[in-house]
Amino acid sequence: MKIIIVGASGTIGKHVVAALKNDHEIITAGSKSGDYQVDISSNESIENFFKQVGKFDALVSASGDAHFGPLNAMKDADFRKGIDSKFMGQINLVLIGQHYINPKGSFTLTSGSLAIDPIAYGSAVTAINAAIDGFVRSAAFELDNGVRINSVAPDVVEDSPAYFPYFPGRIPVKMDKVTQGYVKSVLGNQTGQNYLIVE
Amino acid sequence: MKIIIVGASGTIGKHVVAALKNDHEIITAGSKSGDYQVDISSNESIENFFKQVGKFDALVSASGDAHFGPLNAMKDADFRKGIDSKFMGQINLVLIGQHYINPKGSFTLTSGSLAIDPIAYGSAVTAINAAIDGFVRSAAFELDNGVRINSVAPDVVEDSPAYFPYFPGRIPVKMDKVTQGYVKSVLGNQTGQNYLIVE
Repeated sequence: MKIIIVGASGTIGKHVVAALKNDHEIITAGSKSGDYQVDISSNESIENFFKQVGKFDALVSASGDAHFGPLNAMKDADFRKGIDSKFMGQINLVLIGQHYINPKGSFTLTSGSLAIDPIAYGSAVTAINAAIDGFVRSAAFELDNGVRINSVAPDVVEDSPAYFPYFPGRIPVKMDKVTQGYVKSVLGNQTGQNYLIVE
Repeated sequence: MKIIIVGASGTIGKHVVAALKNDHEIITAGSKSGDYQVDISSNESIENFFKQVGKFDALVSASGDAHFGPLNAMKDADFRKGIDSKFMGQINLVLIGQHYINPKGSFTLTSGSLAIDPIAYGSAVTAINAAIDGFVRSAAFELDNGVRINSVAPDVVEDSPAYFPYFPGRIPVKMDKVTQGYVKSVLGNQTGQNYLIVE
Protein backbone atom coordinates (compact mmCIF):
# COMPACT_ATOMS: atom_id res chain seq x y z
CA MET A 1 0.00 0.00 0.00
CA LYS A 2 1.24 3.51 -0.81
CA ILE A 3 0.81 5.49 2.39
CA ILE A 4 1.40 9.23 2.78
CA ILE A 5 2.30 10.38 6.28
CA VAL A 6 2.05 14.14 6.79
CA GLY A 7 3.95 15.22 9.89
CA ALA A 8 6.17 12.16 9.49
CA SER A 9 9.02 13.53 11.60
CA GLY A 10 6.75 14.70 14.43
CA THR A 11 6.24 13.26 17.90
CA ILE A 12 3.51 10.92 16.69
CA GLY A 13 4.31 10.72 12.99
CA LYS A 14 7.70 9.08 13.38
CA HIS A 15 6.14 6.23 15.36
CA VAL A 16 3.47 5.74 12.69
CA VAL A 17 6.18 5.61 10.03
CA ALA A 18 8.08 2.99 12.05
CA ALA A 19 4.95 0.88 12.48
CA LEU A 20 4.03 0.80 8.80
CA LYS A 21 7.29 1.07 6.87
CA ASN A 22 8.21 -2.60 6.79
CA ASP A 23 5.10 -3.68 4.92
CA HIS A 24 4.20 -0.58 2.90
CA GLU A 25 5.56 2.10 0.61
CA ILE A 26 5.76 5.17 2.86
CA ILE A 27 5.79 8.73 1.51
CA THR A 28 6.93 11.06 4.25
CA ALA A 29 5.90 14.70 4.24
CA GLY A 30 6.37 17.63 6.55
CA SER A 31 6.64 21.38 6.65
CA LYS A 32 10.43 21.23 6.58
CA SER A 33 11.46 17.60 6.22
CA GLY A 34 10.48 14.34 4.57
CA ASP A 35 10.32 13.11 0.98
CA TYR A 36 8.10 16.10 0.19
CA GLN A 37 7.57 19.44 1.88
CA VAL A 38 4.01 20.63 2.23
CA ASP A 39 2.57 23.64 4.04
CA ILE A 40 -0.90 22.43 5.07
CA SER A 41 -2.03 26.01 5.70
CA SER A 42 -1.72 26.66 1.95
CA ASN A 43 -4.15 25.16 -0.57
CA GLU A 44 -1.65 25.75 -3.33
CA SER A 45 1.05 23.85 -1.45
CA ILE A 46 -1.33 20.93 -0.79
CA GLU A 47 -2.43 20.82 -4.43
CA ASN A 48 1.20 20.84 -5.62
CA PHE A 49 2.03 18.13 -3.13
CA PHE A 50 -0.64 15.74 -4.42
CA LYS A 51 0.28 16.49 -8.02
CA GLN A 52 3.84 15.40 -7.26
CA VAL A 53 2.93 12.34 -5.20
CA GLY A 54 0.18 11.13 -7.53
CA LYS A 55 -2.27 8.38 -6.65
CA PHE A 56 -2.06 6.87 -3.19
CA ASP A 57 -3.91 4.43 -0.95
CA ALA A 58 -3.84 6.02 2.48
CA LEU A 59 -3.03 9.37 3.99
CA VAL A 60 -2.21 9.81 7.66
CA SER A 61 -2.03 13.33 9.01
CA ALA A 62 -0.34 13.88 12.35
CA SER A 63 0.18 17.56 11.74
CA GLY A 64 -1.09 21.01 12.61
CA ASP A 65 -0.87 23.46 15.47
CA ALA A 66 -3.45 25.31 17.52
CA HIS A 67 -3.38 28.13 20.07
CA PHE A 68 -3.21 27.27 23.73
CA GLY A 69 -3.91 30.06 26.21
CA PRO A 70 -6.36 31.63 28.65
CA LEU A 71 -9.85 32.39 27.38
CA ASN A 72 -9.98 35.86 28.91
CA ALA A 73 -7.04 36.95 26.73
CA MET A 74 -8.00 34.97 23.63
CA LYS A 75 -8.57 36.84 20.38
CA ASP A 76 -9.90 35.96 16.96
CA ALA A 77 -6.34 35.86 15.58
CA ASP A 78 -5.27 33.31 18.22
CA PHE A 79 -8.19 31.08 17.35
CA ARG A 80 -7.46 31.30 13.65
CA LYS A 81 -3.95 29.88 14.06
CA GLY A 82 -5.52 26.51 14.74
CA ILE A 83 -8.22 27.00 12.11
CA ASP A 84 -5.65 27.62 9.40
CA SER A 85 -3.30 24.86 10.56
CA LYS A 86 -4.71 21.88 12.46
CA PHE A 87 -8.35 22.32 11.38
CA MET A 88 -8.50 23.54 7.77
CA GLY A 89 -5.01 22.22 7.06
CA GLN A 90 -6.18 18.68 7.72
CA ILE A 91 -9.64 19.24 6.14
CA ASN A 92 -7.95 20.54 2.99
CA LEU A 93 -5.76 17.44 2.83
CA VAL A 94 -9.08 15.58 2.46
CA LEU A 95 -10.96 18.08 0.25
CA ILE A 96 -8.06 18.13 -2.22
CA GLY A 97 -6.75 14.62 -1.58
CA GLN A 98 -10.15 13.01 -2.33
CA HIS A 99 -9.43 13.72 -6.01
CA TYR A 100 -6.11 11.81 -5.88
CA ILE A 101 -6.83 8.88 -3.56
CA ASN A 102 -7.36 5.37 -4.93
CA PRO A 103 -10.71 3.58 -4.48
CA LYS A 104 -11.04 1.99 -1.04
CA GLY A 105 -8.28 4.27 0.22
CA SER A 106 -8.37 5.97 3.61
CA PHE A 107 -7.74 9.25 5.35
CA THR A 108 -6.70 9.35 9.00
CA LEU A 109 -6.66 12.73 10.71
CA THR A 110 -5.50 13.76 14.19
CA SER A 111 -7.78 15.49 16.66
CA GLY A 112 -7.23 15.01 20.41
CA SER A 113 -8.87 14.02 23.66
CA LEU A 114 -9.60 17.66 24.50
CA ALA A 115 -12.49 17.44 22.03
CA ILE A 116 -14.48 15.71 24.74
CA ASP A 117 -12.37 16.23 27.88
CA PRO A 118 -11.35 19.91 28.14
CA ILE A 119 -8.56 21.49 30.14
CA ALA A 120 -7.71 25.07 31.16
CA TYR A 121 -6.32 27.17 28.30
CA GLY A 122 -7.66 24.65 25.79
CA SER A 123 -10.87 26.21 24.46
CA ALA A 124 -9.53 26.81 20.95
CA VAL A 125 -7.92 23.37 20.81
CA THR A 126 -11.12 21.71 22.03
CA ALA A 127 -13.20 23.50 19.39
CA ILE A 128 -10.78 22.57 16.63
CA ASN A 129 -10.46 18.94 17.70
CA ALA A 130 -14.25 18.66 17.92
CA ALA A 131 -14.55 20.16 14.43
CA ILE A 132 -12.13 17.58 13.00
CA ASP A 133 -13.99 14.73 14.70
CA GLY A 134 -17.30 16.10 13.42
CA PHE A 135 -16.04 16.45 9.88
CA VAL A 136 -14.84 12.84 9.94
CA ARG A 137 -18.23 11.56 11.13
CA SER A 138 -20.02 13.35 8.30
CA ALA A 139 -17.52 13.03 5.44
CA ALA A 140 -17.41 9.26 5.93
CA PHE A 141 -20.91 9.05 4.43
CA GLU A 142 -20.04 11.18 1.43
CA LEU A 143 -16.60 10.06 0.25
CA ASP A 144 -16.82 8.27 -3.10
CA ASN A 145 -15.45 4.88 -4.20
CA GLY A 146 -15.37 3.30 -0.78
CA VAL A 147 -12.83 5.74 0.56
CA ARG A 148 -12.79 5.73 4.36
CA ILE A 149 -11.96 8.41 6.95
CA ASN A 150 -11.29 8.30 10.68
CA SER A 151 -9.66 10.48 13.30
CA VAL A 152 -7.34 9.56 16.13
CA ALA A 153 -7.85 11.56 19.33
CA PRO A 154 -4.90 10.99 21.66
CA ASP A 155 -4.69 12.23 25.21
CA VAL A 156 -1.38 13.85 26.20
CA VAL A 157 1.37 11.51 24.98
CA GLU A 158 4.38 10.20 26.91
CA ASP A 159 6.83 11.79 24.46
CA SER A 160 5.54 15.33 25.19
CA PRO A 161 6.49 15.93 28.84
CA ALA A 162 6.32 19.70 28.38
CA TYR A 163 2.53 19.37 28.23
CA PHE A 164 2.12 17.20 31.35
CA PRO A 165 1.53 20.14 33.75
CA TYR A 166 -1.44 21.26 31.66
CA PHE A 167 -3.07 17.82 31.89
CA PRO A 168 -3.49 17.25 35.65
CA GLY A 169 -4.66 13.79 36.53
CA ARG A 170 -4.18 12.46 33.02
CA ILE A 171 -1.96 9.45 32.50
CA PRO A 172 0.29 10.16 29.49
CA VAL A 173 -0.46 7.71 26.71
CA LYS A 174 2.24 5.30 25.59
CA MET A 175 3.42 6.00 22.04
CA ASP A 176 2.77 2.39 21.06
CA LYS A 177 -0.85 2.74 22.03
CA VAL A 178 -1.29 5.99 20.11
CA THR A 179 0.41 4.44 17.08
CA GLN A 180 -2.02 1.53 17.04
CA GLY A 181 -4.90 3.98 16.64
CA TYR A 182 -3.44 5.01 13.29
CA VAL A 183 -2.69 1.42 12.31
CA LYS A 184 -6.30 0.47 13.14
CA SER A 185 -7.60 3.26 10.94
CA VAL A 186 -5.31 2.53 7.96
CA LEU A 187 -5.40 -1.27 7.97
CA GLY A 188 -8.85 -1.81 9.47
CA ASN A 189 -12.14 -1.40 7.62
CA GLN A 190 -13.98 1.12 9.78
CA THR A 191 -15.01 4.60 8.69
CA GLY A 192 -16.45 7.70 10.36
CA GLN A 193 -14.85 6.78 13.67
CA ASN A 194 -13.10 8.96 16.25
CA TYR A 195 -10.57 6.78 18.05
CA LEU A 196 -10.05 8.19 21.53
CA ILE A 197 -6.68 7.00 22.85
CA VAL A 198 -6.30 7.20 26.61
CA GLU A 199 -4.50 5.12 29.21
CA MET B 1 -32.47 41.05 32.99
CA LYS B 2 -30.90 42.83 30.01
CA ILE B 3 -30.78 40.24 27.22
CA ILE B 4 -29.13 40.70 23.82
CA ILE B 5 -30.56 38.56 21.03
CA VAL B 6 -28.37 38.42 17.93
CA GLY B 7 -30.34 37.20 14.93
CA ALA B 8 -33.50 38.49 16.58
CA SER B 9 -35.52 38.67 13.37
CA GLY B 10 -34.49 35.19 12.20
CA THR B 11 -36.48 31.96 12.08
CA ILE B 12 -35.49 31.04 15.63
CA GLY B 13 -34.57 34.46 17.02
CA LYS B 14 -38.03 35.97 16.72
CA HIS B 15 -39.50 33.16 18.82
CA VAL B 16 -36.83 33.64 21.48
CA VAL B 17 -37.63 37.37 21.58
CA ALA B 18 -41.34 36.59 21.98
CA ALA B 19 -40.65 34.15 24.81
CA LEU B 20 -38.50 36.54 26.84
CA LYS B 21 -39.75 40.04 26.07
CA ASN B 22 -42.53 40.26 28.64
CA ASP B 23 -40.24 39.76 31.61
CA HIS B 24 -36.93 41.18 30.40
CA GLU B 25 -35.27 44.10 28.66
CA ILE B 26 -34.54 42.77 25.17
CA ILE B 27 -31.88 44.26 22.92
CA THR B 28 -32.45 43.00 19.38
CA ALA B 29 -29.56 42.80 16.93
CA GLY B 30 -29.13 41.56 13.40
CA SER B 31 -27.12 42.06 10.26
CA LYS B 32 -29.78 44.36 8.80
CA SER B 33 -32.48 44.86 11.41
CA GLY B 34 -33.05 45.22 15.14
CA ASP B 35 -32.14 47.84 17.72
CA TYR B 36 -28.51 47.48 16.62
CA GLN B 37 -26.89 46.20 13.46
CA VAL B 38 -23.89 43.92 13.87
CA ASP B 39 -21.89 41.98 11.32
CA ILE B 40 -20.69 38.96 13.31
CA SER B 41 -18.05 38.18 10.67
CA SER B 42 -16.28 41.43 11.63
CA ASN B 43 -14.45 41.83 14.94
CA GLU B 44 -14.62 45.59 14.59
CA SER B 45 -18.39 45.46 14.15
CA ILE B 46 -18.79 43.21 17.20
CA GLU B 47 -16.55 45.45 19.32
CA ASN B 48 -18.51 48.55 18.26
CA PHE B 49 -21.76 46.75 19.00
CA PHE B 50 -20.80 45.93 22.59
CA LYS B 51 -19.46 49.44 23.14
CA GLN B 52 -22.86 50.82 22.17
CA VAL B 53 -24.93 48.29 24.13
CA GLY B 54 -22.78 48.39 27.26
CA LYS B 55 -23.12 45.94 30.12
CA PHE B 56 -25.64 43.14 29.74
CA ASP B 57 -26.79 39.99 31.52
CA ALA B 58 -27.34 37.47 28.75
CA LEU B 59 -26.54 37.11 25.09
CA VAL B 60 -28.39 34.71 22.82
CA SER B 61 -26.98 34.14 19.35
CA ALA B 62 -29.25 32.54 16.76
CA SER B 63 -27.16 33.74 13.87
CA GLY B 64 -24.62 32.68 11.30
CA ASP B 65 -24.54 30.79 8.01
CA ALA B 66 -22.54 27.82 6.78
CA HIS B 67 -22.00 26.13 3.43
CA PHE B 68 -24.21 23.22 2.47
CA GLY B 69 -23.13 21.15 -0.51
CA PRO B 70 -21.58 17.90 -1.77
CA LEU B 71 -18.19 16.93 -0.34
CA ASN B 72 -16.70 16.02 -3.71
CA ALA B 73 -17.12 19.63 -4.89
CA MET B 74 -16.32 21.30 -1.57
CA LYS B 75 -13.43 23.76 -1.43
CA ASP B 76 -11.59 25.60 1.30
CA ALA B 77 -13.50 28.81 0.45
CA ASP B 78 -16.86 27.06 0.90
CA PHE B 79 -15.82 25.78 4.28
CA ARG B 80 -14.60 29.19 5.38
CA LYS B 81 -18.01 30.79 4.84
CA GLY B 82 -19.24 28.92 7.90
CA ILE B 83 -16.00 29.48 9.78
CA ASP B 84 -16.21 33.25 9.35
CA SER B 85 -19.95 33.41 10.04
CA LYS B 86 -21.58 30.73 12.21
CA PHE B 87 -18.36 29.48 13.87
CA MET B 88 -15.99 32.40 14.51
CA GLY B 89 -18.87 34.88 14.38
CA GLN B 90 -20.43 33.29 17.42
CA ILE B 91 -17.08 32.56 19.12
CA ASN B 92 -16.10 36.22 18.71
CA LEU B 93 -19.39 37.29 20.32
CA VAL B 94 -18.06 35.43 23.37
CA LEU B 95 -14.34 36.35 23.12
CA ILE B 96 -15.24 40.04 22.89
CA GLY B 97 -18.51 39.91 24.87
CA GLN B 98 -16.82 38.32 27.92
CA HIS B 99 -15.33 41.76 28.64
CA TYR B 100 -18.78 43.43 28.69
CA ILE B 101 -21.03 40.82 30.32
CA ASN B 102 -22.16 41.22 33.94
CA PRO B 103 -21.11 38.69 36.62
CA LYS B 104 -23.32 35.57 36.54
CA GLY B 105 -24.39 36.43 33.00
CA SER B 106 -24.76 33.86 30.24
CA PHE B 107 -23.97 33.22 26.60
CA THR B 108 -26.18 30.94 24.52
CA LEU B 109 -24.91 29.95 21.07
CA THR B 110 -26.58 27.99 18.28
CA SER B 111 -25.05 24.86 16.82
CA GLY B 112 -27.31 22.15 15.37
CA SER B 113 -28.18 18.46 15.47
CA LEU B 114 -25.86 17.76 12.51
CA ALA B 115 -22.98 17.99 14.98
CA ILE B 116 -23.81 14.46 16.05
CA ASP B 117 -26.28 13.25 13.39
CA PRO B 118 -24.90 14.07 9.92
CA ILE B 119 -26.73 14.30 6.59
CA ALA B 120 -25.60 14.39 2.97
CA TYR B 121 -24.10 17.73 1.92
CA GLY B 122 -23.61 18.64 5.58
CA SER B 123 -19.92 17.97 6.27
CA ALA B 124 -18.98 21.63 6.71
CA VAL B 125 -22.06 22.32 8.83
CA THR B 126 -21.38 19.27 10.99
CA ALA B 127 -17.77 20.34 11.58
CA ILE B 128 -18.80 23.87 12.48
CA ASN B 129 -21.62 22.82 14.77
CA ALA B 130 -19.29 20.36 16.51
CA ALA B 131 -16.71 23.13 16.93
CA ILE B 132 -19.28 25.42 18.57
CA ASP B 133 -20.45 22.65 20.91
CA GLY B 134 -16.82 21.86 21.77
CA PHE B 135 -15.95 25.47 22.47
CA VAL B 136 -18.94 25.73 24.81
CA ARG B 137 -17.90 22.63 26.77
CA SER B 138 -14.40 24.01 27.31
CA ALA B 139 -15.10 27.74 27.71
CA ALA B 140 -17.61 27.01 30.47
CA PHE B 141 -14.72 26.10 32.78
CA GLU B 142 -12.76 29.26 31.98
CA LEU B 143 -15.27 32.11 31.92
CA ASP B 144 -14.76 34.45 34.87
CA ASN B 145 -17.23 35.79 37.47
CA GLY B 146 -19.70 32.92 37.25
CA VAL B 147 -20.55 33.64 33.62
CA ARG B 148 -22.22 30.63 31.99
CA ILE B 149 -22.26 29.35 28.39
CA ASN B 150 -24.38 26.74 26.60
CA SER B 151 -25.32 25.88 23.04
CA VAL B 152 -28.65 24.90 21.57
CA ALA B 153 -28.47 22.26 18.83
CA PRO B 154 -31.83 22.09 17.04
CA ASP B 155 -32.76 19.51 14.45
CA VAL B 156 -34.46 20.88 11.31
CA VAL B 157 -37.22 23.23 12.54
CA GLU B 158 -40.86 23.33 11.46
CA ASP B 159 -40.56 26.92 10.21
CA SER B 160 -37.88 25.95 7.62
CA PRO B 161 -39.74 23.67 5.17
CA ALA B 162 -37.19 24.34 2.43
CA TYR B 163 -34.73 22.18 4.38
CA PHE B 164 -37.08 19.23 4.97
CA PRO B 165 -35.96 17.27 1.83
CA TYR B 166 -32.37 17.28 3.11
CA PHE B 167 -33.39 15.77 6.44
CA PRO B 168 -35.05 12.47 5.48
CA GLY B 169 -36.70 10.69 8.37
CA ARG B 170 -36.31 13.61 10.71
CA ILE B 171 -39.39 15.04 12.38
CA PRO B 172 -39.21 18.84 12.14
CA VAL B 173 -38.96 20.34 15.61
CA LYS B 174 -41.76 22.58 16.84
CA MET B 175 -40.64 26.19 17.30
CA ASP B 176 -41.93 26.19 20.87
CA LYS B 177 -39.66 23.30 21.72
CA VAL B 178 -36.60 24.94 20.15
CA THR B 179 -37.39 28.19 21.95
CA GLN B 180 -37.46 26.46 25.31
CA GLY B 181 -33.85 25.33 24.77
CA TYR B 182 -32.80 28.98 24.75
CA VAL B 183 -35.04 29.81 27.71
CA LYS B 184 -33.50 26.90 29.65
CA SER B 185 -30.01 28.20 28.94
CA VAL B 186 -30.74 31.84 29.82
CA LEU B 187 -32.94 31.38 32.87
CA GLY B 188 -31.54 28.06 34.13
CA ASN B 189 -28.28 27.62 36.00
CA GLN B 190 -26.44 25.09 33.85
CA THR B 191 -23.21 25.73 31.99
CA GLY B 192 -21.10 23.88 29.41
CA GLN B 193 -24.15 22.07 28.04
CA ASN B 194 -25.12 21.29 24.44
CA TYR B 195 -28.92 21.14 24.34
CA LEU B 196 -29.92 18.82 21.52
CA ILE B 197 -33.49 19.66 20.47
CA VAL B 198 -35.23 16.90 18.54
CA GLU B 199 -38.82 15.66 18.31
